[in-house]
Amino acid sequence: MTATETLSLSEIEDLAFRALVKAGTSEENARPLAVATAMTEADGVASHGLAYIPIYAQHVECGKVDGKAVPVVSLPRPSVVSVDAATGFAHSAIDQGFQKLIPLAKEQGVAVLAINNSYNCGVLGVHTQRLAQAGLLGIGFTNAPASIAPSGGAKPVVGTNPFSISAPDADGNAALLIDQSASTIAKSEVMKHSREGKAVPEGWVLDSDGKPTTDPDAGLKGSMVPSGGYKGVGIALTVELMAAAMTGATLGSVASPFSGTAGGPPKTGQFFIAVDPEATSGGAFQEKLTALIASIHDQDGARLPGDGRKTCRQKAAEQGVAVNAAMLEKIRALL
Amino acid sequence: MTATETLSLSEIEDLAFRALVKAGTSEENARPLAVATAMTEADGVASHGLAYIPIYAQHVECGKVDGKAVPVVSLPRPSVVSVDAATGFAHSAIDQGFQKLIPLAKEQGVAVLAINNSYNCGVLGVHTQRLAQAGLLGIGFTNAPASIAPSGGAKPVVGTNPFSISAPDADGNAALLIDQSASTIAKSEVMKHSREGKAVPEGWVLDSDGKPTTDPDAGLKGSMVPSGGYKGVGIALTVELMAAAMTGATLGSVASPFSGTAGGPPKTGQFFIAVDPEATSGGAFQEKLTALIASIHDQDGARLPGDGRKTCRQKAAEQGVAVNAAMLEKIRALL
Repeated sequence: MTATETLSLSEIEDLAFRALVKAGTSEENARPLAVATAMTEADGVASHGLAYIPIYAQHVECGKVDGKAVPVVSLPRPSVVSVDAATGFAHSAIDQGFQKLIPLAKEQGVAVLAINNSYNCGVLGVHTQRLAQAGLLGIGFTNAPASIAPSGGAKPVVGTNPFSISAPDADGNAALLIDQSASTIAKSEVMKHSREGKAVPEGWVLDSDGKPTTDPDAGLKGSMVPSGGYKGVGIALTVELMAAAMTGATLGSVASPFSGTAGGPPKTGQFFIAVDPEATSGGAFQEKLTALIASIHDQDGARLPGDGRKTCRQKAAEQGVAVNAAMLEKIRALL
Repeated sequence: MTATETLSLSEIEDLAFRALVKAGTSEENARPLAVATAMTEADGVASHGLAYIPIYAQHVECGKVDGKAVPVVSLPRPSVVSVDAATGFAHSAIDQGFQKLIPLAKEQGVAVLAINNSYNCGVLGVHTQRLAQAGLLGIGFTNAPASIAPSGGAKPVVGTNPFSISAPDADGNAALLIDQSASTIAKSEVMKHSREGKAVPEGWVLDSDGKPTTDPDAGLKGSMVPSGGYKGVGIALTVELMAAAMTGATLGSVASPFSGTAGGPPKTGQFFIAVDPEATSGGAFQEKLTALIASIHDQDGARLPGDGRKTCRQKAAEQGVAVNAAMLEKIRALL
């Protein structure tokens, strides 16, 4: 039994905020990252919540991310917001971009946000969820250092590159939230097996010759298996096109690692598309979305993507989140 | 050895055009469908080229599609084009929509096209390719009658729902073209096995209880296996959201079939996003795209999605396309 301590969402946000500021992050940059950390814990994605705070603090200290960066926002076209994250946290770049993107999408019917010179954005669905909360259909893409090889090749060229889509209900919540990476399994699971000296199941990783292996270390030197074969490669390439080529950010094939302290800022990118469903559907969106969701929930045992996170979120708002005590101690030691 | 006859692309277009007009399609509606038929044959996707002309002609005659429909184009917001296809062919709705979408995307940086009351759009990548030829990054979605069940359920709620993305090179061509459905295998392959009385491999279809089967007929009554498990369901849902809910079109779960003559017009939808890469990337797009493509082509045997179609296209422009003679006879009998 792992020892836990239950924290409210505002306690989680406050703890994250103070640890980030103590490490040298400006208050402006620490706040959106702390808010996202609390949202991530609320959604039950503990692997990307408070557990990342010591890593973020270390990355501010070693210069992999500039804690005092000031994102530069511009509007190169009537429906385009562009943000140079200036090698700072993705979260403040996204936050400042969204302040322009949301009203613009409502006015124009659609608007996009292109971010470059950025960093790991944590759980992508936390950001698209915010667009749904603003009444918009949100699509997001974020790229990462390469770990998936092209069809017919063995050398990684694209990251596990998630995409996310979030649809608004009529009450200011996300009715549906899809947030999935292009690999069969998350890379963090392979790293966990490596740390624990355990073999991984077949179908997770390939060695550096592109051959199947159950050795996690051979897989980490090789590549991740794309979900659904060449179709997973197609998703990873789609995300790379949007998050890197379309933003002018660093390609996954040459980006410095997100983990560890070596290599300087990764300078990766994010791309968001926000559409006003009322504008494109002639007012029919909520009726169609409700019918689509009902066609799934009406089947015994059938699940909608995002259902699990929504249940966690409702529980967390009322009861707080049970957080690993050893990890909490590690974060409190940073204060 | 199947007997073939080699036709030039303009001969293919002309033949398709005349057969469609003869069946009762207006010239305005027949032309874009004939152009797409020639592009599809050029790309080597014979299953969706001339082979569909007798079906389209039959559907005009039985009223599944209105050959004389006049699409209604409107601009509900500065960056949104909306087309009511009026139960006519998707191709003329897309063609008229693109005439507004392309200049709008260049001016605004991004624009979207939402089409409802529509029909099967054939090969989706033929349409996104046109956006790339206009110098835009094109993303497309199209929905279809349901054949994929949700995770944990057995009853189909979404179609095999393809999405497509096409990126422009500097010379007015598609540098990269991704066009993939959400199922492990195309439904037409299962139908072919059924016609030939052959078992299908495991992993293609599920029966109506959601159990694996190798019986193609049980699969056609059941559901298609999503590519990559729940992640394939996520793609199919993403497409359903965009092509149906966001356009106000008919959901796949209630749409009439694309095949056969029963059920009247399917009234499904299409959604396109067109983005000007120069606007979002600060002029860095071509450099990044070239580097991404090189990272793949530099590996022996590695393939980029769209490479096969591009090779076919170049050959077809010079040498024409070898078309099945029996099918040609069937089409010529319609004239």
